[in-house]
Amino acid sequence: MTPPKIGITLGDPGGIGPEVTLKTLSLKESLPKAQYILFGSSSILEEEEKKLGIKLEIQPVHIKKISDLPSFSIREVSNPLKIVEKGFPSSENGRASFLFFEEAVTEARQRSIQALVTSPISKRSWALAEIPWSGHTDYLHHLFPQAIMAFWSERLKVALFTHHLPLKEAIEKIKKDHLFDFLMILDHNLKKSLPYKFQYLVAGLNPHAGEEGLLGTEEEHEILPAVEKAQKEGMDINGPFPPDIVFRQALGQPNKIAIALYHDQGLIPFKLESFDEGVNLTLGLPFVRTSPDHGTAFDIAGKGEANPQSMIKAIELAYQLSSPL
Amino acid sequence: MTPPKIGITLGDPGGIGPEVTLKTLSLKESLPKAQYILFGSSSILEEEEKKLGIKLEIQPVHIKKISDLPSFSIREVSNPLKIVEKGFPSSENGRASFLFFEEAVTEARQRSIQALVTSPISKRSWALAEIPWSGHTDYLHHLFPQAIMAFWSERLKVALFTHHLPLKEAIEKIKKDHLFDFLMILDHNLKKSLPYKFQYLVAGLNPHAGEEGLLGTEEEHEILPAVEKAQKEGMDINGPFPPDIVFRQALGQPNKIAIALYHDQGLIPFKLESFDEGVNLTLGLPFVRTSPDHGTAFDIAGKGEANPQSMIKAIELAYQLSSPL
Repeated sequence: MTPPKIGITLGDPGGIGPEVTLKTLSLKESLPKAQYILFGSSSILEEEEKKLGIKLEIQPVHIKKISDLPSFSIREVSNPLKIVEKGFPSSENGRASFLFFEEAVTEARQRSIQALVTSPISKRSWALAEIPWSGHTDYLHHLFPQAIMAFWSERLKVALFTHHLPLKEAIEKIKKDHLFDFLMILDHNLKKSLPYKFQYLVAGLNPHAGEEGLLGTEEEHEILPAVEKAQKEGMDINGPFPPDIVFRQALGQPNKIAIALYHDQGLIPFKLESFDEGVNLTLGLPFVRTSPDHGTAFDIAGKGEANPQSMIKAIELAYQLSSPL
Repeated sequence: MTPPKIGITLGDPGGIGPEVTLKTLSLKESLPKAQYILFGSSSILEEEEKKLGIKLEIQPVHIKKISDLPSFSIREVSNPLKIVEKGFPSSENGRASFLFFEEAVTEARQRSIQALVTSPISKRSWALAEIPWSGHTDYLHHLFPQAIMAFWSERLKVALFTHHLPLKEAIEKIKKDHLFDFLMILDHNLKKSLPYKFQYLVAGLNPHAGEEGLLGTEEEHEILPAVEKAQKEGMDINGPFPPDIVFRQALGQPNKIAIALYHDQGLIPFKLESFDEGVNLTLGLPFVRTSPDHGTAFDIAGKGEANPQSMIKAIELAYQLSSPL
């Protein structure tokens, strides 16, 4: 089997992205056997290597021309950066991190890489650089409107039906047809990549999942019909369950996936349970995309203190999802 | 100092209320020094004592006539029960548990007891008995519209701005004046009873607390003005914070209280972090009321397997809150 090609973007050069990437690659033999292609700038990498006292053999490469890549290579992305200033958002770093990401997505769409792992960018840096998207997921959602945001750890797996919307608008999106479509895409994408028989647990919207209509009607009118239709399509799915119970039910059960109806319903429990080793996963794309579940951490950038655990997990999941069953 | 009088209702006789109450009282010397008055029926207690092999000296008492109560006494509440059927909701048990509670609240309002600890009732049993309230909190809210529902453990403390409302309606309630009033009542009630200097952390409503208006405007228009007004009144309060971060900030900090804007925003993290030892606390009443944070657990009722930990914590907190500073 040819090892998969996994792209890794360096993220915002002013944040901890380059650091956690290098710390992860320095594990070498314990990483999954893949060809890792960084999308970024050698000057950023070299500066970071010096700081961390890490020296890896990362070779410059033009993906399309080389079929037999070394384990670690870097795709030099056109980069206006001269000096990397660490620790705060900047237009230069915003522009650079967007270009790294854009280039990597272009390669992923052309299938020259099978998976993409994205280091954290700063939404503020992107705004300063006048990038018209609010972040990675927003950009991907624009290209692939069916993209699904999910969060993954050994302890808890959560898929979000809606994500970056005001709560009022998120509630308006809860319609049975839309929810049913979401469930089908989710199941299809997981089934084709992972050897588990997943069980899905759907959260309700209202306290006690509406308590038989006393505390809300969305459960009865929208959520239950979508769940029942998905059951008829063969999905192993149940719900709606009381939101304050469903995440406990999924906890510690590797084959159970909790479906949250809005951003914080899923992210409150996920960040409590899996803070250091959570992975952000985008499903419904023609390629695999994962990301560590932390931000640029400007407060510790450049200090060598960043924990690469979430990046390691993001790479392991990307490998698992991009390897044929 | 006279020991406080703490009332304990037996809850639904078909659930685990009588069992966790007896298991807790059997700890005797390790309980806080108080006069414990059960509200219920001796026949239920005796049956439960037989099952559990516990024999306590619980004396029948008429509160108003006896000033010097024994440690454990029982207030016999008019009770139509003949045989207690365990393990499912019933109109008889619903009626009995409502009468226990109603009598205890009447005594608490007359200050003949300083605190009330309520064992779990079944909302279904109450509905079968045609009790017009959906539960303890609903009844108390009817008598005391300013009542505040809070959840308390060593790891996490959460107060709910709204509770048993459909999520859409809960969002409509988020108005700065209403939120400010809530904050004042909360702080006033805690300050008068507990020797801590509390810090309050207010959750936002929308993802990332609205992200400067991009993902919702309630933070800017309603929540922030209420928080700033409370700061001016001398409260140590901050926010709104991103909902998926604020509960982590409060976790493990005994003097921090997270303020959730709706039921599941607070209950999802609380039930994950404090399942077995959480206490439900009602503030803003003329007396103290606590309750174990679990239900009737009909599935294990009568089997002797119920864990009294949450009841023990509920009694300890009731004692702490009802003892003068």
